[in-house]
Amino acid sequence: MSQIKLGMVGGGQGAFIGSVHRIAARLDGHYKLVAGALSSNLETSKASALELGIKQDRSYSTFKEMAEKESSLEDGIEAVAIVTPNHLHFPIAGCFLSKGIHVICDKPLTHNLEDANKFVKAVEDSKALFALTHNYTGYPMVRQAREICRSGKIGKVRVIQVEYPQDWLTTPLENATDSPGNKQASWRTNPSKAGAGGCIGDIGSHAFNLADFITGAELDELCADLSSFIPGRKNDDNAHVLLRYKNNIKGMLWSSQVAPGNENALKIRVYGDKGGLEWEQENPNYLTLDLYGSAKQTIRRSGFGTMDIANRVSRIPPGHPEGYLEGFANLYSDFAEQINAKKANRDPDPSSMLVPNINDGMKGIKFISTVVESSSKGGQWLKF
Amino acid sequence: MSQIKLGMVGGGQGAFIGSVHRIAARLDGHYKLVAGALSSNLETSKASALELGIKQDRSYSTFKEMAEKESSLEDGIEAVAIVTPNHLHFPIAGCFLSKGIHVICDKPLTHNLEDANKFVKAVEDSKALFALTHNYTGYPMVRQAREICRSGKIGKVRVIQVEYPQDWLTTPLENATDSPGNKQASWRTNPSKAGAGGCIGDIGSHAFNLADFITGAELDELCADLSSFIPGRKNDDNAHVLLRYKNNIKGMLWSSQVAPGNENALKIRVYGDKGGLEWEQENPNYLTLDLYGSAKQTIRRSGFGTMDIANRVSRIPPGHPEGYLEGFANLYSDFAEQINAKKANRDPDPSSMLVPNINDGMKGIKFISTVVESSSKGGQWLKF
Amino acid sequence: MSQIKLGMVGGGQGAFIGSVHRIAARLDGHYKLVAGALSSNLETSKASALELGIKQDRSYSTFKEMAEKESSLEDGIEAVAIVTPNHLHFPIAGCFLSKGIHVICDKPLTHNLEDANKFVKAVEDSKALFALTHNYTGYPMVRQAREICRSGKIGKVRVIQVEYPQDWLTTPLENATDSPGNKQASWRTNPSKAGAGGCIGDIGSHAFNLADFITGAELDELCADLSSFIPGRKNDDNAHVLLRYKNNIKGMLWSSQVAPGNENALKIRVYGDKGGLEWEQENPNYLTLDLYGSAKQTIRRSGFGTMDIANRVSRIPPGHPEGYLEGFANLYSDFAEQINAKKANRDPDPSSMLVPNINDGMKGIKFISTVVESSSKGGQWLKF
Amino acid sequence: MSQIKLGMVGGGQGAFIGSVHRIAARLDGHYKLVAGALSSNLETSKASALELGIKQDRSYSTFKEMAEKESSLEDGIEAVAIVTPNHLHFPIAGCFLSKGIHVICDKPLTHNLEDANKFVKAVEDSKALFALTHNYTGYPMVRQAREICRSGKIGKVRVIQVEYPQDWLTTPLENATDSPGNKQASWRTNPSKAGAGGCIGDIGSHAFNLADFITGAELDELCADLSSFIPGRKNDDNAHVLLRYKNNIKGMLWSSQVAPGNENALKIRVYGDKGGLEWEQENPNYLTLDLYGSAKQTIRRSGFGTMDIANRVSRIPPGHPEGYLEGFANLYSDFAEQINAKKANRDPDPSSMLVPNINDGMKGIKFISTVVESSSKGGQWLKF
Repeated sequence: MSQIKLGMVGGGQGAFIGSVHRIAARLDGHYKLVAGALSSNLETSKASALELGIKQDRSYSTFKEMAEKESSLEDGIEAVAIVTPNHLHFPIAGCFLSKGIHVICDKPLTHNLEDANKFVKAVEDSKALFALTHNYTGYPMVRQAREICRSGKIGKVRVIQVEYPQDWLTTPLENATDSPGNKQASWRTNPSKAGAGGCIGDIGSHAFNLADFITGAELDELCADLSSFIPGRKNDDNAHVLLRYKNNIKGMLWSSQVAPGNENALKIRVYGDKGGLEWEQENPNYLTLDLYGSAKQTIRRSGFGTMDIANRVSRIPPGHPEGYLEGFANLYSDFAEQINAKKANRDPDPSSMLVPNINDGMKGIKFISTVVESSSKGGQWLKF
Repeated sequence: MSQIKLGMVGGGQGAFIGSVHRIAARLDGHYKLVAGALSSNLETSKASALELGIKQDRSYSTFKEMAEKESSLEDGIEAVAIVTPNHLHFPIAGCFLSKGIHVICDKPLTHNLEDANKFVKAVEDSKALFALTHNYTGYPMVRQAREICRSGKIGKVRVIQVEYPQDWLTTPLENATDSPGNKQASWRTNPSKAGAGGCIGDIGSHAFNLADFITGAELDELCADLSSFIPGRKNDDNAHVLLRYKNNIKGMLWSSQVAPGNENALKIRVYGDKGGLEWEQENPNYLTLDLYGSAKQTIRRSGFGTMDIANRVSRIPPGHPEGYLEGFANLYSDFAEQINAKKANRDPDPSSMLVPNINDGMKGIKFISTVVESSSKGGQWLKF
Repeated sequence: MSQIKLGMVGGGQGAFIGSVHRIAARLDGHYKLVAGALSSNLETSKASALELGIKQDRSYSTFKEMAEKESSLEDGIEAVAIVTPNHLHFPIAGCFLSKGIHVICDKPLTHNLEDANKFVKAVEDSKALFALTHNYTGYPMVRQAREICRSGKIGKVRVIQVEYPQDWLTTPLENATDSPGNKQASWRTNPSKAGAGGCIGDIGSHAFNLADFITGAELDELCADLSSFIPGRKNDDNAHVLLRYKNNIKGMLWSSQVAPGNENALKIRVYGDKGGLEWEQENPNYLTLDLYGSAKQTIRRSGFGTMDIANRVSRIPPGHPEGYLEGFANLYSDFAEQINAKKANRDPDPSSMLVPNINDGMKGIKFISTVVESSSKGGQWLKF
Repeated sequence: MSQIKLGMVGGGQGAFIGSVHRIAARLDGHYKLVAGALSSNLETSKASALELGIKQDRSYSTFKEMAEKESSLEDGIEAVAIVTPNHLHFPIAGCFLSKGIHVICDKPLTHNLEDANKFVKAVEDSKALFALTHNYTGYPMVRQAREICRSGKIGKVRVIQVEYPQDWLTTPLENATDSPGNKQASWRTNPSKAGAGGCIGDIGSHAFNLADFITGAELDELCADLSSFIPGRKNDDNAHVLLRYKNNIKGMLWSSQVAPGNENALKIRVYGDKGGLEWEQENPNYLTLDLYGSAKQTIRRSGFGTMDIANRVSRIPPGHPEGYLEGFANLYSDFAEQINAKKANRDPDPSSMLVPNINDGMKGIKFISTVVESSSKGGQWLKF
């Protein structure tokens, strides 16, 4: 096993998701972080690199310089993780993709539809691979839920209820310059960096993706009502969406960042004509399955009743909780399998292809953009 | 303490809600059931009366006969409980109200708006009192939630999420003539008996009422998407509704009778700018309160942190669960207080006035009817 | 259906368990409270009778007078509920039993072994029936647990873990004369009224009874360590007990009244060689069943997977929680069936015989007394 | 930041805890695994090393060879992780300690008291550092529980309830040679490898350590009843223990490996005269705090109400669950801080000293040995 040489753009000191990506990359030992353009601030960038054991000559001040130099080194990076605000995703990814460097990009894909379209083309045109970190798809019990749904165990799907409430924007944190959360809040509520979707883009897109991943239901039309409860906040901080999927499936999606008491309460429930299932991100090792006519079942990660697709991405026995970082790491490790298979000129493990790809990214941007348009038209039903 | 003499219309053998009303009436000892027109089927009616200890000469074949005779007896009934299908509520209630007999009516008020309007007038014109059994308002912790909301403890309300999923109509139970549930399913899915709302009328109206009771938010407009997933079922069995309340409050309501694994899972969450609260009917002795900035609190019925308004309707110490029947009985006992106060020509305990009344009933019918209209127009936003 | 005429000794204003017994008697309509000696304090007694609708001439100042008079009336009471402190149970019960009046007695049976022995004889010598309100045996899911255990579904039982923590004696409430809880605390911590067991007698005996009821395991020996954490408190407020049952079953029992955060947290877990089950009193409508090798099952009262023995004592559909009072009422209603069968000279429904009887009472007193002796000998193992 | 060079003894393919140690070492990036004697089987050892990216010349066939060679290399390992069966812990650790190589040893310390005594001396005599992976002490909310207890927030501690049930030895897995669990079961039920304690040594020692870590209560005497429910199984698979701590604290400890439905259900509850707290390993991001007189509080990792001591070992925001591996990694990272401080000749962060040390290890062995002796004497109370 030789480790994949990884670079990172963004994720300097004070960032949140960058450190998550680094842990995810390290956890199973498939990657080695060797280069970075960690911050637009040079001092932060250097300090961050030092702290992370990245050599000074591979700590870059711009992503362009990094792409240029690394692609010319014999032991240059093979993959790059992009953990910047949304509006930078495409410019950066496009640059690395064009050099044949694999890209792991944080979600959502971009801040607007225009960039998303270019992004699709850039991936198509590149021989490099692409992964989008809709990380909740990495949880073993989410994969089990997908398998249960798609195998018909709960019958023909009728109703999908998905929600993703948080509370960290209950107050105008973006103005609280003395708080460590201010930096996160600031760009996420800024349309020019985050895109036209606030809460719906940041977390609503995760909720939509999760429903898609598990059920495979194809969205047909939607009706949305976005709110921004903080005076002066330009982007939405609460989103209510009705969904009509093809094949007579109805759905409801709620995402909020102003719901006190909810920290990261992503939850999905799917109901078919033979049963229902339920999964909650804050208690991710358990999946509830109700086959109509039987007692409620709680399936425990790695425990009795789990499927291969879930066990493959579990590390430890039932009762030993795995969490957010392990789920995230599963995407990294699956993507490593894709990279290693490509290097070895062999087919990857089919399950490793569950990592969200450019199509999922495009779907997400279309979702955000349709929601925003529907809401801006007073909550009109729009085709997806 | 002398017991209030009570009659009942409907609720013969095989019915569900009739026996609930009887237990609710008995539990605190305020009522004595002495007369009934328990079934349109004469045999069932007689057998039921016998079983309930109602004397044969006070077991009637029609409600009209009952109203007539009882109002002429010196010790005739003072109040009547109406537990028939919806379309009979008004004809029966109107008859008893006109005789000055207090009415306790099951929800929803009627099966259509026309009857509802007449109902309002009949109550106004009568000197008798009226109560509508939106029974979930009787739970102590629901009353505490109301008080918390209305006292401003969670600040200015922003978002209301209410849901009421069940699963008993997952299959076409209305056609399963060999099942005990068939009778219930049959009239509830029949528009001529239940009204134009199926699930939205049967339980969605409870959800709407609960949000109203707790928050006092005034509905401004709504957008609804109703479904009927069983071929041949005329009324909806799943309802998705977006709500816009006055004063910039947004809401979402889901009710379903085809959600396997949900038995009677009414749940409400209210979020304000200072905190949030959550209550679930299946675990009714607990109320979760999150004041933004503090650890999550779980307030236990009769326990530390409960308010007078909740303790007044609690019977036993914390940790000794009270349930659905006790909550239902609270409405009966509060209504008894109203009746006894009227008899004694004194003001009733103000808290006893929390029992849903004719206005709440009217609001519910308007809600059902607006939802049905919105959905039939393809999910159009309509003013309430 | 004619109602059983009931009297009550104890349970005047300010008492706790008396009102529980009254609700339990009323709930299913099988009893009518017509006489009482409700308090040793004459004023309280009269006021309580008035409040309860007991006629003044059937409100007695002593139980002896009541037994005397009622047994001479044509429509005198058929049964009496005894809800006094423990030391009075036998004197009162003995008196009514000797008159042929059925007795429903609160637990534990008596305050000492001597009285318990006499009690057994008194029941044997009487033609009247006897019931002891170990009320937790009335819960539907407890009965289902019993059936599951005894049917061998979880295999040969190996381990029983039972606990009953409360917190209401965390502070010296018995000295807080200004608190409403003082009256309860006062006699329960007083050996001359409660007996030598404090917490072990008041609630530990419930825990022991529950294990016995569900598993039928026969206790062989035990080792106990009692504590009293409040200076001056004579009886134990925390009890730790190791249990060795016959047939190689091991058990552990904890009861406490000084465990902050626990209100009435009776819980039992039983493990066999094929599976385990778990039930908690504060969430009584659910029973967890783990068949080794399968996913965890949650069986819901009246829901899928319930047995006749549980459904027989359920009133309402799943998802509509029943609680403490309904469980208590099940004992009253089962005892009514015993009484009515006797009156009708027929066999009672066999399930109605699940009501705890004099043998269960005797076992409980023996348990308390063995625990107290073991602890007083420094935690010595003693034969049961 | 330069990474600490780490070796490993044991943990070859098919082992459980070895891979946990490796992830824990990798997660925060403080260690680099460079050498190993991964299995007593040469083939397994080589294959495991290859898989882990350990160079062939640093994959050793015996720990002695490894200690010899590595201590002579300029870039030899600085620390070694010992993840073998218990009886090998001391021989291996002693060897590395004598070479000045830091030791991270899995629990329990040894398989008997004799080795434990030698172990203490070996650590004292070495200039190297020692850590014992009682990993549950690494959970942030366990550290918060410790701080809450020790700060007096719940008052004077009275009662400690700790339990650790599992179910994986419900059947004679040690005989099921075709099962992957057989290897684990086999040595853990074998006294010559595991020591005289089975379940009490494997997990009971964790439970005892957790109570010790959180409360600091000093054990005074105990009474134990061990069972072995599987015919032919020599070591206990269920342990019931009563505890008397100094300063009038009473405790109860249950550990079991034959409790179906329990996977790794370590749970501790501590009750003082001002409040109680509760923590469960299977839901480790939450801590329940009941201050007597207030509503129940649920404190969420990284959320409102958490303390520095907990936040220091948290990586991600509340609602993003961390689990077993992160808790384990906290011990590795704290030990890295101890090592790095020693290298830099500075004082380590005081919180890093929370990692269990040789004294904790010794206490654990004494506990196991006293429990076994008490049980073998029929459940006699013995001084600790």
